[in-house]
Amino acid sequence: MPDPRFFTPAGPFTLAHLAKVAGAALRPGADAKRRFSGVAALADAGPADVTFLDNRRYLKLFAETKAGCCLVDPRFAERAPAGIELLLTDKPYKGFALVAQAFFPEPELVPGVHVRAVVDPSARIGEGTRIDAGAVIGQRVEIGRRCWVGANAVIGDGVVLGDDTVVGPCAVLAYCIVGSRVLLHPGVCIGNRGFGFAIDPKGHVRIPQTGRVIIEDDVEIGANSAIDRGMGPDTVIGRGSMIDNQVMIGHNARLGRGCVVVAQAGISGSTTLGNYVVVAAKAGLSGHLTIGDGARIAAAAGVIRDVPPGGEVGGLPAMPLRQWHRQTVALGRLAKRKGAVDDQ
Amino acid sequence: MPDPRFFTPAGPFTLAHLAKVAGAALRPGADAKRRFSGVAALADAGPADVTFLDNRRYLKLFAETKAGCCLVDPRFAERAPAGIELLLTDKPYKGFALVAQAFFPEPELVPGVHVRAVVDPSARIGEGTRIDAGAVIGQRVEIGRRCWVGANAVIGDGVVLGDDTVVGPCAVLAYCIVGSRVLLHPGVCIGNRGFGFAIDPKGHVRIPQTGRVIIEDDVEIGANSAIDRGMGPDTVIGRGSMIDNQVMIGHNARLGRGCVVVAQAGISGSTTLGNYVVVAAKAGLSGHLTIGDGARIAAAAGVIRDVPPGGEVGGLPAMPLRQWHRQTVALGRLAKRKGAVDDQ
Amino acid sequence: MPDPRFFTPAGPFTLAHLAKVAGAALRPGADAKRRFSGVAALADAGPADVTFLDNRRYLKLFAETKAGCCLVDPRFAERAPAGIELLLTDKPYKGFALVAQAFFPEPELVPGVHVRAVVDPSARIGEGTRIDAGAVIGQRVEIGRRCWVGANAVIGDGVVLGDDTVVGPCAVLAYCIVGSRVLLHPGVCIGNRGFGFAIDPKGHVRIPQTGRVIIEDDVEIGANSAIDRGMGPDTVIGRGSMIDNQVMIGHNARLGRGCVVVAQAGISGSTTLGNYVVVAAKAGLSGHLTIGDGARIAAAAGVIRDVPPGGEVGGLPAMPLRQWHRQTVALGRLAKRKGAVDDQ
Repeated sequence: MPDPRFFTPAGPFTLAHLAKVAGAALRPGADAKRRFSGVAALADAGPADVTFLDNRRYLKLFAETKAGCCLVDPRFAERAPAGIELLLTDKPYKGFALVAQAFFPEPELVPGVHVRAVVDPSARIGEGTRIDAGAVIGQRVEIGRRCWVGANAVIGDGVVLGDDTVVGPCAVLAYCIVGSRVLLHPGVCIGNRGFGFAIDPKGHVRIPQTGRVIIEDDVEIGANSAIDRGMGPDTVIGRGSMIDNQVMIGHNARLGRGCVVVAQAGISGSTTLGNYVVVAAKAGLSGHLTIGDGARIAAAAGVIRDVPPGGEVGGLPAMPLRQWHRQTVALGRLAKRKGAVDDQ
Repeated sequence: MPDPRFFTPAGPFTLAHLAKVAGAALRPGADAKRRFSGVAALADAGPADVTFLDNRRYLKLFAETKAGCCLVDPRFAERAPAGIELLLTDKPYKGFALVAQAFFPEPELVPGVHVRAVVDPSARIGEGTRIDAGAVIGQRVEIGRRCWVGANAVIGDGVVLGDDTVVGPCAVLAYCIVGSRVLLHPGVCIGNRGFGFAIDPKGHVRIPQTGRVIIEDDVEIGANSAIDRGMGPDTVIGRGSMIDNQVMIGHNARLGRGCVVVAQAGISGSTTLGNYVVVAAKAGLSGHLTIGDGARIAAAAGVIRDVPPGGEVGGLPAMPLRQWHRQTVALGRLAKRKGAVDDQ
Repeated sequence: MPDPRFFTPAGPFTLAHLAKVAGAALRPGADAKRRFSGVAALADAGPADVTFLDNRRYLKLFAETKAGCCLVDPRFAERAPAGIELLLTDKPYKGFALVAQAFFPEPELVPGVHVRAVVDPSARIGEGTRIDAGAVIGQRVEIGRRCWVGANAVIGDGVVLGDDTVVGPCAVLAYCIVGSRVLLHPGVCIGNRGFGFAIDPKGHVRIPQTGRVIIEDDVEIGANSAIDRGMGPDTVIGRGSMIDNQVMIGHNARLGRGCVVVAQAGISGSTTLGNYVVVAAKAGLSGHLTIGDGARIAAAAGVIRDVPPGGEVGGLPAMPLRQWHRQTVALGRLAKRKGAVDDQ
């Protein structure tokens, strides 16, 4: 039960409404007017809750759930317990996400510029946008409609934001062009000088970084992540990419559409990711690499070579996942052999 | 000698007072009225300083120290140099911490809300609390007594703080309930949306994150760390846990009491730590794991399986520490063999 | 072509001027008055651009470049295409950095304290310094000349900055003495309490951290990096060291001159680096180590032993680079052998 200090659920909603929201079908004879008031996990849900089954490992939980309604693939429908309503879809988890969004919509934005915000007179702020106390908006900044700039965020000269974009508290943006429906978490630093200099014993010489960061529509970037601007070319985060907390992306890097980069991963300068690449937590990619569409980088992998489309790599240094598993097994066996080490 | 621009030592204190502070005993014939004015390491301490011996490796340094006073286990007392006073305790390092706190107490808090802070009228601020310039306190926030909210920190709507809690400059808190005597360093981001969405080529669909972060009493969280709120359940940091800088803790994770998580470690969503677990620097834990009481995770380990109470693991992927050491040795030997690689 | 919303190039400049800037020589018969207006990579440059050749791998690109001018080592001059002007130097990349700085100088600082900044009356601010909106400057702070303190940055009581130093937006400084020409990126946290406490099941006991952070001249520190103050001794970042984003440096650590620490690396407490040490991305160094002058730590290495001057180490745990490569090869061969694993 969400804490009412923080969350105000919408609903209840009828089964028919939820089916529409989720793009799901009903079983013949379903009670389309039955109402539900929340969402919960299979094991925790009660008669007023909607839940989901997305993994056949949980079929047993499904068969015993007390939930009033479940999103489920049609082929598992016959395992449903008595009295439950089903929302039939081949994407139950996506359906669940949509249903949960219906119950917990984003709070309505109260537009306005707080009297303690500092907005340069040359900045343009779109209709319906909210700017919180302490936010500092620089010269010639352009902010679209229905955006939300959090308290103490700093938006540097010339930055552009699309519509419906959220900038978290204490986020710092500079030298960047940001699309619509982008979600930037607290503490992100975007558009920083890239780490470029000529090494010299008399004093390293900084190279001007004259590119930008381009953040396309529907991107999310997690708390305290850092994305450097390009050195001449731009750094680009492709449409719909999801980036977790404390991720670092170096200058000139380019991510395609729909990439997922999990917490504490790092992508070095000039490396290019195709579309729908997944970089798991703490993985690191060297500079100047090309990672193909749909490639998957395992957690904590250290990638020093290109990865082909659809490739899966892991280990330090990273290698094809299958090879890494073989090595892990082989090493385990080696160490178990008599005399492999000095047994005491 | 601490820089007087930053630190104002208390004292001097008598040996009797320090014994009380440290919970230590004196030797027969000790000069209980002798006064000391500071603390220092064994090798650096002079006649006015208190030092400690906590490791028998340093017995030789102990025998030669110029310190005026030393916290030491009684069984090493006979090795003490002439003229030194001893504070006898079986926990010399803890005793030293307490003595050092006596010499360097936290500076007294000057209460008051800075005229440039922004506090919503619906917020409740306890007696003796200090709120610095630029801090932004949201609606219905409750802050206890003798708290200190640093400059430009942002405390979101509905957040609750206990008594004697410190929120560092530029920290961002939202969707969280924080206990008493908690120390949150600068730049921490707490209560962020967890990294939850249904992956979909037409656009990943975000799942509302309707849980909170619960931070129990006496917790410390280091600079630029990020703790996401739960997805439905809460994310919980148990009483007395110490978390270092740049640590990432995912949604629904639960830490027990007294855990220690060192810098740049990451704990993924829904993973549960028992009490007094130690996670060393840069270690990463996958999601949905259970780590038993007192377990120890080595630096940079990549943990993908449960760890039993008291277990010690290391390596990538992590395995029992002993096994990892065996593998390290076995691999070293293998590589030294003739023909193991193409020798040039 | 840099986005004019963010960058205003200087120039054009004559070949003679650029030769002076770069410390380079001209070929006999060079057209010293020819003018150039920008910089670009070998493959992208046009007749008005200056480029550089720093790696013989790109000799073919050099021979075909359309650039109007190229910084190059004299021994490659004969490979130059017709019509190009050459700037001859044995440090072409450094020369390029200097030329690029000429075309893209730092924007001129408009001095002044923003009316929405908060500066304690006891602080001293040097001539020509700019302090942006929302910045909070504590008691007895001393800031030199021509500094720039970004929006919402927080500078704690007693902190000292030299001349020409830049503090990024939302950076937090405390307990530190900072030199001249230092560049601190957004979100850095400097001078935090070190992670020091006596472990105790009744409640870990914090040890006062009474040292400072000393940041020498010409240092750069990347976004969201964290540097803890010393426990008694100071934490020191030596002159000209370059530190990337999200780096963590623990209490009492000491870096020599000109060190390079790449993103997401971590240096634990009391570890000492000599001069010109390179720590690559994501590497971690244990505490109390000594790393010699000019040593190089590979990306993601886990260093648990001292490294001699000039040493190169990699792997987890880290070992000499050559040995690590041997082990990697040997393990790869082992895993390929028949029966090394259960082949299916």
